[in-house]
Amino acid sequence: MKQYNCGVVGIGAVGTEMVRLLKARNFPVKALTILARSERVELIDGVRYPVQAARPEAFAGLDFVFFAGTEGAKGASQTLGWEAVQRGGIVIDNGDDFRMDPRVPLVIPEINPEALRQHQGFIANPNCSTIVALMALAPLHRAARLRRFVASTYQAVSGTGSAAIRELEAQVRAWVAGQPLPREVYPHPIAFNVIPAVGSFKDDSGESTEEIKLRNETHKILGDAAIRIAATTVRVPVFNGHSIALNAEFERPLSVAQARALLAQAPGVRVVDDPPQAVYPLPINASGCYDVLVGRLRTDPSVANGLALWVAGDNIWKGAAQNAIQIAEELLRLGLK
Amino acid sequence: MKQYNCGVVGIGAVGTEMVRLLKARNFPVKALTILARSERVELIDGVRYPVQAARPEAFAGLDFVFFAGTEGAKGASQTLGWEAVQRGGIVIDNGDDFRMDPRVPLVIPEINPEALRQHQGFIANPNCSTIVALMALAPLHRAARLRRFVASTYQAVSGTGSAAIRELEAQVRAWVAGQPLPREVYPHPIAFNVIPAVGSFKDDSGESTEEIKLRNETHKILGDAAIRIAATTVRVPVFNGHSIALNAEFERPLSVAQARALLAQAPGVRVVDDPPQAVYPLPINASGCYDVLVGRLRTDPSVANGLALWVAGDNIWKGAAQNAIQIAEELLRLGLK
Repeated sequence: MKQYNCGVVGIGAVGTEMVRLLKARNFPVKALTILARSERVELIDGVRYPVQAARPEAFAGLDFVFFAGTEGAKGASQTLGWEAVQRGGIVIDNGDDFRMDPRVPLVIPEINPEALRQHQGFIANPNCSTIVALMALAPLHRAARLRRFVASTYQAVSGTGSAAIRELEAQVRAWVAGQPLPREVYPHPIAFNVIPAVGSFKDDSGESTEEIKLRNETHKILGDAAIRIAATTVRVPVFNGHSIALNAEFERPLSVAQARALLAQAPGVRVVDDPPQAVYPLPINASGCYDVLVGRLRTDPSVANGLALWVAGDNIWKGAAQNAIQIAEELLRLGLK
Repeated sequence: MKQYNCGVVGIGAVGTEMVRLLKARNFPVKALTILARSERVELIDGVRYPVQAARPEAFAGLDFVFFAGTEGAKGASQTLGWEAVQRGGIVIDNGDDFRMDPRVPLVIPEINPEALRQHQGFIANPNCSTIVALMALAPLHRAARLRRFVASTYQAVSGTGSAAIRELEAQVRAWVAGQPLPREVYPHPIAFNVIPAVGSFKDDSGESTEEIKLRNETHKILGDAAIRIAATTVRVPVFNGHSIALNAEFERPLSVAQARALLAQAPGVRVVDDPPQAVYPLPINASGCYDVLVGRLRTDPSVANGLALWVAGDNIWKGAAQNAIQIAEELLRLGLK
């Protein structure tokens, strides 16, 4: 089997999982290059990885380049992404700089792999919330056509990056020790709190960038800009695993039984749905799970053809690192590399 | 000023705050009787309160009887509520046994005080989520008529009762100590998790009792059963303070500016809304606050006359104990006692 020189740019919460998952998923890696702002050595699962400075020349010879796109590495793809492409690599960018760029396919492999056929060497990984929501909604959309959905998110701190994971931990330890909660990453304590702000507020709409992404990316991935979307994105004191409450309205009737059958056979989705037995998707169960969990399936009686559901997915895996690697796997499967 | 013999039945998370708030709000208490399952002495803020066994005879001479309605005390109003009324008391019941009973007004004093005029000695306090949501929605409903709303809740453990508060604390302490998380109250860990189940699942609708309450109680309080309501109720690792994401649709147009003006003058509501400056309602700020906080006001562009908002309120105060005492205050103001 052919093997490929792979690069990971940025080695925070997402980049580290990219390195782990390339191994765990047996991606045909010939050699792995890790790039970041500065040279150093990173220890991941007992293995020492040399980290090189991310300069244009460092991309020479790389077949696949995964930009982790979080924290310090954010924007690295903006200055270096096309440099990697010019040197013959395929870039898969987890950042948000190019997601809406018409040259760049935005892909969830289980949902719109066909978009990869038009790739120009640069492919974008969608936002974590978008991926988790669409893994459940896309199979239903194919069957009954989504007209509108309302999404309220319960997002883990890992989505902000490693520093936020440390911040939640430090706040909880301080609380137990009876000390003031340290605070650097979020403007408010996240321990024992929820913060109705993910991303930033850049325009006059009152929507956060995360809420806008969820709408725009859904339109691009499903190829249907007529779907009306309202989101409230909220940070919760969970280490890893995003959950989302979804209220969807379809053009055609879709019973709970039909929806359950569609989701049961959807790749990458696991139906976890027996509420009287306390069985429903939980972020602690979604964390470390390749599948997105779907449950609390019920009729939304407040609207025609309405369905309510609850999803939970590993935002760092399926919502970021795993989906990026699945894009590379799909490119190989489709013979597009 | 006339003073009244008051009773509090049940002395868990809600009952304790009823005792505190009767004092803090200067309710004209002549004597306070605390009733519970068994006789004992309770220490609240350094004061020792004798607790008597809740038997029918114990209600003799009480003018106002507040049933806390949580945990062990749940159902006490079912066996003892009308006994108290027969002995000349006015019962204000925080439990859910009589909320939908046509003999029983269900009241948020800022919203439907007029319902008190028909009281038969027994008044119900609404569910905590219903109160927090309606404090924001009712003023908008009066202006533009609600047609539908979607509510996704972020509910604190205090709503489950004192044992759940202790459980979250014990789980966090165990986590910091590197020990297994103790678990008694919830079927899953609540620390670093969210649980999409509040109340229980009794029917085939797939909705939880909490979700059904939010719909039915809203219809009764607003006197408008045509409002279509879909809720997903979720427990989050917050000690106190319920938050709710709301997507509302109105019959008539309602701009964000109009909504903000209406909410700014609504009694019991505080507008907290400057997201770029990280100013929005937070449960840690709502906790210990008489007002319900409202923010993230924005147009919901996904539907005609749509408005999205985010509310946070103290579920034990405004969502329970405080609202119950406000009902008694309102009865006095209206000369109905």
